[in-house]
Amino acid sequence: MRHSDPLPSWREGATKTAIVDFLDAARSVPVDQRVAVFDNDGTLWCEKPNYVQAEFLLGELDAAIARDPVLGERDEYRAVIENDATLQAELGLERIALALVELCAGIGPGEFDDRVRAFVARSMHRERHVSYRAMRYSPMLELLDALRADDFAVFLVSGGGTEFVRAISQDFYGVSPEGVVGTLVRYEFSRGEDGRPRLVRDAALDASAANEGEAKVANIQRGLGRRPIFAAGNTAGDREMLEYALAHDGPSLALLVDHDDAEREYAYDAQAGTIAFEGDLVEFGRDLGWTIVSIRDDWASVFGP
Amino acid sequence: MRHSDPLPSWREGATKTAIVDFLDAARSVPVDQRVAVFDNDGTLWCEKPNYVQAEFLLGELDAAIARDPVLGERDEYRAVIENDATLQAELGLERIALALVELCAGIGPGEFDDRVRAFVARSMHRERHVSYRAMRYSPMLELLDALRADDFAVFLVSGGGTEFVRAISQDFYGVSPEGVVGTLVRYEFSRGEDGRPRLVRDAALDASAANEGEAKVANIQRGLGRRPIFAAGNTAGDREMLEYALAHDGPSLALLVDHDDAEREYAYDAQAGTIAFEGDLVEFGRDLGWTIVSIRDDWASVFGP
Repeated sequence: MRHSDPLPSWREGATKTAIVDFLDAARSVPVDQRVAVFDNDGTLWCEKPNYVQAEFLLGELDAAIARDPVLGERDEYRAVIENDATLQAELGLERIALALVELCAGIGPGEFDDRVRAFVARSMHRERHVSYRAMRYSPMLELLDALRADDFAVFLVSGGGTEFVRAISQDFYGVSPEGVVGTLVRYEFSRGEDGRPRLVRDAALDASAANEGEAKVANIQRGLGRRPIFAAGNTAGDREMLEYALAHDGPSLALLVDHDDAEREYAYDAQAGTIAFEGDLVEFGRDLGWTIVSIRDDWASVFGP
Repeated sequence: MRHSDPLPSWREGATKTAIVDFLDAARSVPVDQRVAVFDNDGTLWCEKPNYVQAEFLLGELDAAIARDPVLGERDEYRAVIENDATLQAELGLERIALALVELCAGIGPGEFDDRVRAFVARSMHRERHVSYRAMRYSPMLELLDALRADDFAVFLVSGGGTEFVRAISQDFYGVSPEGVVGTLVRYEFSRGEDGRPRLVRDAALDASAANEGEAKVANIQRGLGRRPIFAAGNTAGDREMLEYALAHDGPSLALLVDHDDAEREYAYDAQAGTIAFEGDLVEFGRDLGWTIVSIRDDWASVFGP
């Protein structure tokens, strides 16, 4: 018998039962196979109206233009600053994203960390006017704790920048930097004038593609070296990762967070991510045996008290 | 005052004092910056007369040729089987290594793990006729424990295959798979006949180069996301990693294991690794402030009782 409910922010119902049943069943799995992976944006914290990382990069852009106004004339930056949907569509999201990544080229990993942490510490969510810390989902934080209480290794597998997520992962989610798999920017080895080795951020990605879709599965092996038996996500970019977790022989669980609560959070389609999906991802996932988390129905509290 | 010596296999002297002083000084470093990285072959376990991974691959080659004798006619394999130094030099180590990696192409990460573990469980060191477990260096195992007792995160940064090292890292060194950075083989995402996603080992490396030299530093950032303040290695492939650790502002330590004990282990030059180094690496390192570990003088015991 459980002495206290480790998931008080989850309403009683089929979803919570599926989670509790999985936790019970997983106690029969060898500890080194108890591996859980979580997407970050839209799964552990709010990703609307804009990814937090995008807000960070916009701040970097403002600062860069303040230093060098000519930068503002560059198409990729103009498209963002003027919020020009036509120009954005013409240039493509990837080209714009890489142009924004360029803003941090030339600095070391330590300085990048410092910038992200300073940004997260000082910034407020654009519409809710609370800290980003307060935009984490309480039910998911409880779930991280419940998994760890049962000796799960808990990892983050994000489409966002690896270093961006690492800068907050320990503080926000209790996940140390080596437990974060994301989209990697290339680092170049170089030496300072004193001959000491150092790493410098490049303007290019380390891999051929962002950490979304099939890449998430390959990067889980690359970075973590174990297969998950639990996965949680919220868009088509998480599809393969959820399928991969569920393909495990033995207890497994795949959670898809459905953003259906315009009142307490945001309401938007699961196919609204950066990877295209034809059809209804929620229905598709249900057919595959995924457990759908309705924010409206399953969460008693979204952001905590 | 210390109640008991955490490093009983280390003889009293300048080397042990340097380690103990570093451990003391590191208690003033924030816990999230207490990061230690260790090379594996020749640093944590014996790499002579042959890398353990090479022995594993030779076993895979024997098995493959038993199944398909024609394979034995392939130049890269013939060079190995016939121990033909001229042919080996002609083909080059990299081409031979990649041909051996090919032997495991097409299998999944789980099966690769199983093969490595089975090999390590059943095999004996070629000359000492003891298990590979018994070929770990006791003084270094004590050092891993001493670092962890002071809340260091301890990682392995090996020139060997990432998955090979991961298969034994928890059991042999208490390091979980995500804490291992090595030379990565590419994995391809695919689907089985039942539509389930799976990963399949490729015959190619994931990166442009093996995890040696400068690549070790970049891959520490890639895979672990934190900079070490302690590093231990034994060849020129560890040079940049040792320099990187020592470049940290604040307490830091770089250890170079010098294999100078033909009686109890093996005696060979530190420049005998896969990366060329002109000159005497031990003298070079001493000039840079590295702490040189003489197996002959500094270790009271090499492999334990």
